[in-house]
Amino acid sequence: MAAAFTAIGGKWKLTLLYWLAHGESHFAGLRRRGAPITPKVLAEQLRELEADGLVERVVTGPVPARVIYRLTPYGATVLPVVEGVRVWGEAHLQRTDGQSVSDTAMSCASSIV
Amino acid sequence: MAAAFTAIGGKWKLTLLYWLAHGESHFAGLRRRGAPITPKVLAEQLRELEADGLVERVVTGPVPARVIYRLTPYGATVLPVVEGVRVWGEAHLQRTDGQSVSDTAMSCASSIV
Repeated sequence: MAAAFTAIGGKWKLTLLYWLAHGESHFAGLRRRGAPITPKVLAEQLRELEADGLVERVVTGPVPARVIYRLTPYGATVLPVVEGVRVWGEAHLQRTDGQSVSDTAMSCASSIV
Repeated sequence: MAAAFTAIGGKWKLTLLYWLAHGESHFAGLRRRGAPITPKVLAEQLRELEADGLVERVVTGPVPARVIYRLTPYGATVLPVVEGVRVWGEAHLQRTDGQSVSDTAMSCASSIV
């Protein structure tokens, strides 16, 4: 991927940043959003976001659910960009009428900035 | 992928929109940008961008190179969003110092809007 687009251009990264913008989450919580992302790909995308300093993996206590993922302060700097994509994407959905925005799991109807 | 992020969230879509913002291109021209994208994936991403009305595939004449890809007027509406990602991405590269922005093939240093 062209260099400048690498950090947030991965297939699920904008979506993950959007989800985490609403609050920290366990891995299972991200899985439960209902999007068709495999655990392997989810783990991979989270690792890459972590490597780029956008997301942090925090060990909070013993099992179960002892690890949470959350945006770093640096990750928060990308939210206006994510919001720009979201707003355009919402208008695109209205235009194409291709997918119901009332699908809770997949909806990106709420603003994050 | 969460609905609103589908149309431009694919792994290579932002990059392809960025490249096409600089002018129409043959398939081979996009290949020659030197990014590590396979012909199969490139064709797939172009097909999806075309299905979403962002890119059009125009037959211009006999072989060789009779097909070009170019942004549609609708595709041009997404360029401010792509530019937002690019600007953030450039700053991110400066911060991480991870990749040379002087690599012509992969550089996204020039503004498109």
